[in-house]
Amino acid sequence: MNHQSTTPNSRPVIALLTDFGQGDGDVGVMKGVIASIAPDAQTIDITHEVAPQNIPSGAWILSTAYRYFPQGTVFVCVVDPGVGSSRNAIAVRAGDKFFVGPDNGLFSYVLAQQTFHNAVVLSNPAYHLPQVSSTFHGRDIFAPVGAHLANGVELSVLGTAIDSTKLQRIDTEPPLRQGGYIEAHIIHIDRFGNLITDIPLTLVPELSSSPIDRGNQHVDSQPGINFPTLGTVINRHYRFFAESADDGQPFIYADSSGYVGIAVRNGNAAMTFGAEMGIPITYKS
Amino acid sequence: MNHQSTTPNSRPVIALLTDFGQGDGDVGVMKGVIASIAPDAQTIDITHEVAPQNIPSGAWILSTAYRYFPQGTVFVCVVDPGVGSSRNAIAVRAGDKFFVGPDNGLFSYVLAQQTFHNAVVLSNPAYHLPQVSSTFHGRDIFAPVGAHLANGVELSVLGTAIDSTKLQRIDTEPPLRQGGYIEAHIIHIDRFGNLITDIPLTLVPELSSSPIDRGNQHVDSQPGINFPTLGTVINRHYRFFAESADDGQPFIYADSSGYVGIAVRNGNAAMTFGAEMGIPITYKS
Amino acid sequence: MNHQSTTPNSRPVIALLTDFGQGDGDVGVMKGVIASIAPDAQTIDITHEVAPQNIPSGAWILSTAYRYFPQGTVFVCVVDPGVGSSRNAIAVRAGDKFFVGPDNGLFSYVLAQQTFHNAVVLSNPAYHLPQVSSTFHGRDIFAPVGAHLANGVELSVLGTAIDSTKLQRIDTEPPLRQGGYIEAHIIHIDRFGNLITDIPLTLVPELSSSPIDRGNQHVDSQPGINFPTLGTVINRHYRFFAESADDGQPFIYADSSGYVGIAVRNGNAAMTFGAEMGIPITYKS
Repeated sequence: MNHQSTTPNSRPVIALLTDFGQGDGDVGVMKGVIASIAPDAQTIDITHEVAPQNIPSGAWILSTAYRYFPQGTVFVCVVDPGVGSSRNAIAVRAGDKFFVGPDNGLFSYVLAQQTFHNAVVLSNPAYHLPQVSSTFHGRDIFAPVGAHLANGVELSVLGTAIDSTKLQRIDTEPPLRQGGYIEAHIIHIDRFGNLITDIPLTLVPELSSSPIDRGNQHVDSQPGINFPTLGTVINRHYRFFAESADDGQPFIYADSSGYVGIAVRNGNAAMTFGAEMGIPITYKS
Repeated sequence: MNHQSTTPNSRPVIALLTDFGQGDGDVGVMKGVIASIAPDAQTIDITHEVAPQNIPSGAWILSTAYRYFPQGTVFVCVVDPGVGSSRNAIAVRAGDKFFVGPDNGLFSYVLAQQTFHNAVVLSNPAYHLPQVSSTFHGRDIFAPVGAHLANGVELSVLGTAIDSTKLQRIDTEPPLRQGGYIEAHIIHIDRFGNLITDIPLTLVPELSSSPIDRGNQHVDSQPGINFPTLGTVINRHYRFFAESADDGQPFIYADSSGYVGIAVRNGNAAMTFGAEMGIPITYKS
Repeated sequence: MNHQSTTPNSRPVIALLTDFGQGDGDVGVMKGVIASIAPDAQTIDITHEVAPQNIPSGAWILSTAYRYFPQGTVFVCVVDPGVGSSRNAIAVRAGDKFFVGPDNGLFSYVLAQQTFHNAVVLSNPAYHLPQVSSTFHGRDIFAPVGAHLANGVELSVLGTAIDSTKLQRIDTEPPLRQGGYIEAHIIHIDRFGNLITDIPLTLVPELSSSPIDRGNQHVDSQPGINFPTLGTVINRHYRFFAESADDGQPFIYADSSGYVGIAVRNGNAAMTFGAEMGIPITYKS
């Protein structure tokens, strides 16, 4: 049998990303289903704390994580406000990995960044649980399909092929640079209250090359970020948190996600500024 | 040796359910103990967010989860307000699985639903940690016992046999249907704020057979739920969340747990109604 | 090759302790990195809810947990306010285990309690990710180094040896007993709101030997705890939670961490007393 080599490791990896939280047991149930079908698979939680039903946030977190997983990893991702409706359930092979979940844009960054190989609508019930509910496809469809993929089942047997152009996508285009200005947004707020923007670091090379502001020099020539809705301007930047001189001082930094971030030294930038996900910012180089 | 075949997989599964949260390191310590005794076991978290010391809630979450785990799974469950007192520590073999924890009713649904094989009081200290504290039997007794079971140790060597009728039970009887009415309760509130009742879907076949209310028809003949203490009536029902027409609209649905649920389209039913676990409801068909 | 036997189990254990939370995907990314390098390793979460950037709290939680893990376990610990600065990244072999993380005092209890073998500054980039960010060494340095150690790589190849005396330490000295008094602090608050003090049980043998106060006897001769800043005195003690007679009654108990704890029967001591981490207490025997 011409078996596609999806599992170079002895223990294939299934990575989970959902908005289920960990309180209800739903994630545990998905892992139970996976262990029943693919006992040798290793499941890894990316997060289960995606803001409920927030597809763009789930898509973005996935985009910052997937590259760090082994070749052949199967990502089972469930942020699924349309569960039970006519939205498709899909599995996608892109780059050297697999992505399983609802066809609602959750894989938009992956599709924009990785080589597309093939995708299917999960129409073959032989790879689902015998009973499929209307409200928990994570358990009934996505977990079993992910487990079968981890077992080496070929994507093509899971359902009907679907063209890449037919897959749902959300807007993942980075903001444009217009002269020295970039109109952008806060795309994520992390546990420390750091604000992550949708400005890729590659768009702002001056952030890594310009002299570091150590707080004792004129800063007009420094890159700055303005919150139009909050009336706040930040025009210092540092390479890392401890470099900032004073507690409570806000600054711009290169977040490890690959995007421009805003932090407050030994503080919480989101609380300091009353900033929420999605608010607009203006970057000025 | 006539060894009971408890571990058909190469990697036996130990599933954990506690009210410990994940902040204190207690769950990690239990897994360290398990890894020390049963290095090939795979531990899966069902949840560690059971409401503190809430035995009925833990028992119910376990009841919605255990069927999805592989044959031979060892469930180590610790919601244990009586830890250190004279309450028994037990291990139970029921159906094709094992259940380890305090004898306080946590396994009531399992005992009501599965074939009972045998049970023991965990009186044999050879299978506990050398030092047993008065306040953390999860670490000192339940985790090591679960690990030994995963290793294939026979239940009977773990302690003294105890009869099924002697095991503690909480009330797991579903509410009764009286004519068109069912007096019931909210038994769980999930992460999305959906309210799960203790009415099994099997008790209300009309929910799946009656025509779907699409919001444009007379609804007097539809099933409805009344919150006597909150003065609220809900009389629409939908098969899934996206089917509901309007944001903020409450509706009845068949929850994937197998029970009747109440949701608010793109909203939080618990917050909308100020509903808490345990409040009474009246279902009318 | 004279290979040090770090991995007696078929599945080496990597235990993780961070202040990253589980919402951002950072922990999942670290596990993805580990699975890429050490596919047979088993990762176990101790906790990811250490209070943000609170090194003493992380060090203490680690101290209550590490003994329960198998020989050869690699602890990857990241509470790292100084990430990106000139603080060292280190790996330490102490007792029969390995500890990887920033050199900021996180391993102080371990170093005080275990036999030191050797330690290195993680200066060899061959064991890091190809690109190292300034803000996420958990992903770029500590996870890959931990995975290589789990694979059996020798500590000495990871970087330059550093003397034990050069490693950063925080104060881990237990409080002193002066006559019948001990001036101490609240060092941890657990999920149930129990207050854990920094008084080791070994310092207060009377807690286990004195007669148990069952609430119906004169208590002047009992050990007691005073909160100077809160004006509260507690002078009952019990062996376990259910032994306390009345709901809402505060009492002293022997916490399973090995330290003196303060609880409220069926209640939350932290909320009852308005107590916070770090506040002073006075113990009187």
